[in-house]
Amino acid sequence: MKSFCLFFLILLSQNVFSQDLTKHINPFIGTGGEGHNYPGATVPFGMIQPGPDTHLPDFNKNAFPWCAGYQYNDSFVIGFSQTHFSGTGHSDMGDFLIMPTVGEVKLNSGDADYLDGYRSQISKSEEWAEPGYYGVMLKSYNIKAEITATERTAFYKFSYPQSDNAHLIMDLTSSIYNYEGKIIWSEIRVLDDFTITGYRQTKGWAADRKIYFAMKFSKPIESYTLVDDEDFYYKGFGVKGKVLENYPFQYGRKVKAHFDFKTGVGEIVYVKIAISSVGTDGALKNLETEIADWNFNKVKSDAKSLWQKELEKINIEAPEKEKQIFYTSYYHSLLAPIIYSDVDGRYRGVDGNIHNAEGFTNYTIFSLWDTYRAEHPMFTILQPNRDADMINSMLAHQEQSVHKFLPVWSFHGNETWCMIGYHSVSVIADAYLKGIKGFDEKKALDAMITTATYEKYGGLKYYMLLGYVPQDKEKEGASKTLEYAYDDWCISQMAFKMGNTKTYDEFIKRAGYFRNNWDAGTRFFRAKNTDGSWNEPFDPLFAAYGGDYTEGNGWQYSWYVPQDVRAMINLYGGNEKFVAKLDSLFILKTEDEKYKQVEDIAGLIGQYAQGNEPSHHVAYLYNYAGAPWKTQEKIHMVMNNLFDNTPEGMCGNEDCGQMSAWYIFSSMGFYPVCPGSLEYIIGTPKLNKVELKLDNGKIFRMIANNLSQENYYIQSAKLNGKTLERSYITHSEIMNGGELIFEMGASPNKNLWTDLNQIPYSMTK
Amino acid sequence: MKSFCLFFLILLSQNVFSQDLTKHINPFIGTGGEGHNYPGATVPFGMIQPGPDTHLPDFNKNAFPWCAGYQYNDSFVIGFSQTHFSGTGHSDMGDFLIMPTVGEVKLNSGDADYLDGYRSQISKSEEWAEPGYYGVMLKSYNIKAEITATERTAFYKFSYPQSDNAHLIMDLTSSIYNYEGKIIWSEIRVLDDFTITGYRQTKGWAADRKIYFAMKFSKPIESYTLVDDEDFYYKGFGVKGKVLENYPFQYGRKVKAHFDFKTGVGEIVYVKIAISSVGTDGALKNLETEIADWNFNKVKSDAKSLWQKELEKINIEAPEKEKQIFYTSYYHSLLAPIIYSDVDGRYRGVDGNIHNAEGFTNYTIFSLWDTYRAEHPMFTILQPNRDADMINSMLAHQEQSVHKFLPVWSFHGNETWCMIGYHSVSVIADAYLKGIKGFDEKKALDAMITTATYEKYGGLKYYMLLGYVPQDKEKEGASKTLEYAYDDWCISQMAFKMGNTKTYDEFIKRAGYFRNNWDAGTRFFRAKNTDGSWNEPFDPLFAAYGGDYTEGNGWQYSWYVPQDVRAMINLYGGNEKFVAKLDSLFILKTEDEKYKQVEDIAGLIGQYAQGNEPSHHVAYLYNYAGAPWKTQEKIHMVMNNLFDNTPEGMCGNEDCGQMSAWYIFSSMGFYPVCPGSLEYIIGTPKLNKVELKLDNGKIFRMIANNLSQENYYIQSAKLNGKTLERSYITHSEIMNGGELIFEMGASPNKNLWTDLNQIPYSMTK
Repeated sequence: MKSFCLFFLILLSQNVFSQDLTKHINPFIGTGGEGHNYPGATVPFGMIQPGPDTHLPDFNKNAFPWCAGYQYNDSFVIGFSQTHFSGTGHSDMGDFLIMPTVGEVKLNSGDADYLDGYRSQISKSEEWAEPGYYGVMLKSYNIKAEITATERTAFYKFSYPQSDNAHLIMDLTSSIYNYEGKIIWSEIRVLDDFTITGYRQTKGWAADRKIYFAMKFSKPIESYTLVDDEDFYYKGFGVKGKVLENYPFQYGRKVKAHFDFKTGVGEIVYVKIAISSVGTDGALKNLETEIADWNFNKVKSDAKSLWQKELEKINIEAPEKEKQIFYTSYYHSLLAPIIYSDVDGRYRGVDGNIHNAEGFTNYTIFSLWDTYRAEHPMFTILQPNRDADMINSMLAHQEQSVHKFLPVWSFHGNETWCMIGYHSVSVIADAYLKGIKGFDEKKALDAMITTATYEKYGGLKYYMLLGYVPQDKEKEGASKTLEYAYDDWCISQMAFKMGNTKTYDEFIKRAGYFRNNWDAGTRFFRAKNTDGSWNEPFDPLFAAYGGDYTEGNGWQYSWYVPQDVRAMINLYGGNEKFVAKLDSLFILKTEDEKYKQVEDIAGLIGQYAQGNEPSHHVAYLYNYAGAPWKTQEKIHMVMNNLFDNTPEGMCGNEDCGQMSAWYIFSSMGFYPVCPGSLEYIIGTPKLNKVELKLDNGKIFRMIANNLSQENYYIQSAKLNGKTLERSYITHSEIMNGGELIFEMGASPNKNLWTDLNQIPYSMTK
Repeated sequence: MKSFCLFFLILLSQNVFSQDLTKHINPFIGTGGEGHNYPGATVPFGMIQPGPDTHLPDFNKNAFPWCAGYQYNDSFVIGFSQTHFSGTGHSDMGDFLIMPTVGEVKLNSGDADYLDGYRSQISKSEEWAEPGYYGVMLKSYNIKAEITATERTAFYKFSYPQSDNAHLIMDLTSSIYNYEGKIIWSEIRVLDDFTITGYRQTKGWAADRKIYFAMKFSKPIESYTLVDDEDFYYKGFGVKGKVLENYPFQYGRKVKAHFDFKTGVGEIVYVKIAISSVGTDGALKNLETEIADWNFNKVKSDAKSLWQKELEKINIEAPEKEKQIFYTSYYHSLLAPIIYSDVDGRYRGVDGNIHNAEGFTNYTIFSLWDTYRAEHPMFTILQPNRDADMINSMLAHQEQSVHKFLPVWSFHGNETWCMIGYHSVSVIADAYLKGIKGFDEKKALDAMITTATYEKYGGLKYYMLLGYVPQDKEKEGASKTLEYAYDDWCISQMAFKMGNTKTYDEFIKRAGYFRNNWDAGTRFFRAKNTDGSWNEPFDPLFAAYGGDYTEGNGWQYSWYVPQDVRAMINLYGGNEKFVAKLDSLFILKTEDEKYKQVEDIAGLIGQYAQGNEPSHHVAYLYNYAGAPWKTQEKIHMVMNNLFDNTPEGMCGNEDCGQMSAWYIFSSMGFYPVCPGSLEYIIGTPKLNKVELKLDNGKIFRMIANNLSQENYYIQSAKLNGKTLERSYITHSEIMNGGELIFEMGASPNKNLWTDLNQIPYSMTK
């Protein structure tokens, strides 16, 4: 009886303390509409993202919806590629596509209209996804394809029908955002009957991306054919043929392959593929280190455990639908940045050379214009060690960069220069000021200064000379001035804390440059020319690439002074005028025509665009003008209307976790309006209860009493038992553990937190 | 007085023991006609070969004469590239061409007929070359360009005229054996005002060659422009322009650059360029490690000392003309293989991955169809340690090769599969059997067996099945059978000594397969089809790619049984018939028409073709038939008529040192007819005296008494004071030190060495 009791107790304790949280995750959320998420199998921060590609249009032919290679409503799977971005608004990747087939060999993916090529029809009822797992029935071949993964290795399980003509196709020409000429070079080698290696080098969003793979089969290949479907260039003495049968080496720009075997009824063929930025040796080492055998269920279960471990950091109470949105958001927020170094620490740097990440894990995919806003601040709470390593990765990038510039939008050893600003400095200053250790702060500040004074970047030369980015020299001058000024404030704050007053003085001055683009006449921040004249004609509703603003219009961008909201309110003429204009933002409609050039503007409520990042802090600004109930109203409206637990549940691009991090913070009731400031501004909670289990062992709890669909107004709040007299909490209040209790109601408490002396004024530091 | 005396003595001793031997070297020998040598500055076995390119035709437009990028009679210098092959018959290289100019910037090399482009006129009277140094007056710009080098770093000295518009052009599109599309990708980065790095990746003779550079200027660049002269592909968000002024990063397939400064009258600008197969970091490390400062004369003098040190291994007495031919031959024989690993031991393997050469120096450029014959045997005597490291490099190649095949014709991490056979096994067996240590003999034998049994290589599958390479399955079947059989004999000999009788039995059997291609009817080795029929029509004078033979005809190839000359003589019907047919070889003329498809056949005496390798051992075969005086006659004729101390002094391609090694051996009076056999067959000396200073401290001396232009017949010979009763000496007789004295005369001694029992019969082992 004794042993039975012990067993029972263990079972009980497991049930109580580790309920399965992964079941709330639905990887299909955001895979329809504009989310640009992928449903493939991956582990937290996993280097590899194997998953289905359903449509791969040429990058300049309406490819935007297929940034992740997938749209939920597509009825085909072209194949399974190993790399995907999570929710980007531009794209690349889709490397090393494989596809199991039976029957006649086809080496072209074919056309959806004609059902030709190696693609397969699928049915939504026979497609499954959960954290670390994806499965689909390939109806055209009667093959069930399943995928799981470790950090660097994809693990495929293909259940074939009986066939004397079973194949695995590998198409090195397939790519997301492809175009004729994108594949600079590729190679494939058959090392033995089980093992294939290769690489490809692409010129896409990344200028010169080299990625390597190693692939192993669970059963021997009986025959194989390696094809280079191009003929024009000099082939030399060796490999002469376009079609090489059972010859182990092929190279070129249009390389495809098929590996053939016979299968019995329902015979399972497993395939493992690992990737590396270093070489095929790195890929092979990753594969062999991470998955020694062929136990698919074990790897799948391990992947699930990794997710469970991350999810256990946040225990929530909420209706199931809310749980699905919340936990899937958290899932999404851990899909970028991703691990970039091999198991042995090596990686290919932005200088093209092989480096060893000594003492840290190197990360890549830095979508910093997005993720500095909420994702990295979330990491400072829930992933401080990884955030430090991400910073180490940024510093290594800066050191290797010929521009000596911190990452802007970088991935796989390349800087794309996509978007604006130098928001790495925000991530670093935020982490430093929050006391995160594990990176060299002096080196970091030097890198930040070097970055912020690099004249060749985005009009910085003129910005430093004139105090603003002149539109006649550099497009999107208004957005650039505003974002540079915020970044400069971040540098000033870090320098201040480090006692570097010279740098503080220099950058606190630059932090005020936002004033130079304020047009008191139109009451918008606008672009100005070198001679001081405003860029004309001006239409605050019009958005276009190369206009005054970056992916936005005057209405959307004229709230971007997070470092000194008080000063901004004063520019607007005081609280009342500011609140009135903010109100208009959420009401003012316009013809789609005004935005048609900028596909990223989405998730609209009036001119407020939750679907793109410039709006993300805006609804929180009411707090600063003494009207927190209006923040509560708007945040509730946004969370309620623009997030759902469906494939179309994302109102705009996920943007590598930023959209999700916005939701995670907002649903907990607070948001980092100004990273670097240590303050989280209170909005309105969407969850009944949250428990954050912090790495330091402490627990921070948020409880929203009386919360309901109608009761989204905060009546009062208590922090650790004492009435909270201000509309924000601080980073240390979270990290020290404690309890924040909101009392919710159906009517606004317009007297709550109206004392403007309680609002943070970061610029006064 | 005392100190003066000491000084005098030192001077005297230097004069006696280290006279300047480099003065006998004329790097222009072989740079005209068909030698395909380059006159650039390099050190022994140097990884880098900086030098002038005078004409760079498209590879399929009569490029053959410019395999080394240079022809002596050209009147232009296009620029100076950093890599050149020494005397090959196919080509590639010509990386990272630079050209100093003044005045208007030109980024195209221009056309010789119109004097346009950045090329410059030169005059032969203002061009200088010596070991480790090259200089030329660039008349179009009034710039004197001088070059010296260390192992991995080129050092340029440019004396500019006064100019406000002085430039250094760098053209990453320039290449030897270029063609549209050869440059797969290239990059250039300006790290600071002094330092440039970059790389290029080419598809030429090598399938996927990646080579990196680092360049440093002695004075700061005032401005620079990086151009990518191509537009069709997607440039992304970052570098958009084709022409980037003072922007530090450009990439693409047509990248060129100019670096600008002002110069005073005769102002010297130094430029250092190092290369690496690993990365720009490797190149920079090579540069900084090898040349710390800007002392051009010191580096030049060091380079000369390195040559002097090598030359001192062979002291000769001969007329000055002979000294020039001999020492320049020795100079040429040390220009390939070359060092391939960086100063830190890293290199890019044939698997494309970065490896570390642990415990050895990695070498590259293995032109093995050529160099196994005499160059590697020469290394076994004079460069045993390097020969061991070359073997280690071959073994690393085999391990990294997807075919698990030893190098055939490999360079810069690529196998070209050029020419036939698997003559790495000859190099390895020869070294092993001669007692050279420093490589893993077991691993080596395994690699040799794996190579020789790889079915997919050059008809080996059928060779193993049928005992010959059938022409209907694999072209050039006669040559292949003959060379494989020799290689197999090499494997058998090594296996025999290692006590591996199973392998010995297998390969000694294969060593006899030459018999299967003997046509007793025509008395030629001929190609046979699978069904045993001869390939028809047959014309022993006709040579064509894809015919019965490889770069040769029936007359040239029908002597290739070095492993069992006795058996071959018997096939011919005995000594007399054999000698008669050999005599015919040197007489039989034919129309050029018969050879027109094979540009490598050169240096003809009848059908004997000294200019290509299949003939190299042939004149020595008289010895085996008891007619050594005929060998003496023919060898004298060849040395006398086909080698000269002029630019046109090479009668055919140098072939990475093989032609020179043939001359070095032959002029000393003996030659390795059958590498692996330990025997050197006596021909006739061309030098009065040779002293080989061996690494083991011993000295081997050859003295030719009474030698003159007429006295080239050996009357008698003594080895270490005793009459030499046979027409060969052994490897150990050389390596133990000793003295070989020939008594020369004007008439043949037809009774000398006619005892056939004294002739080696290798196959009996």
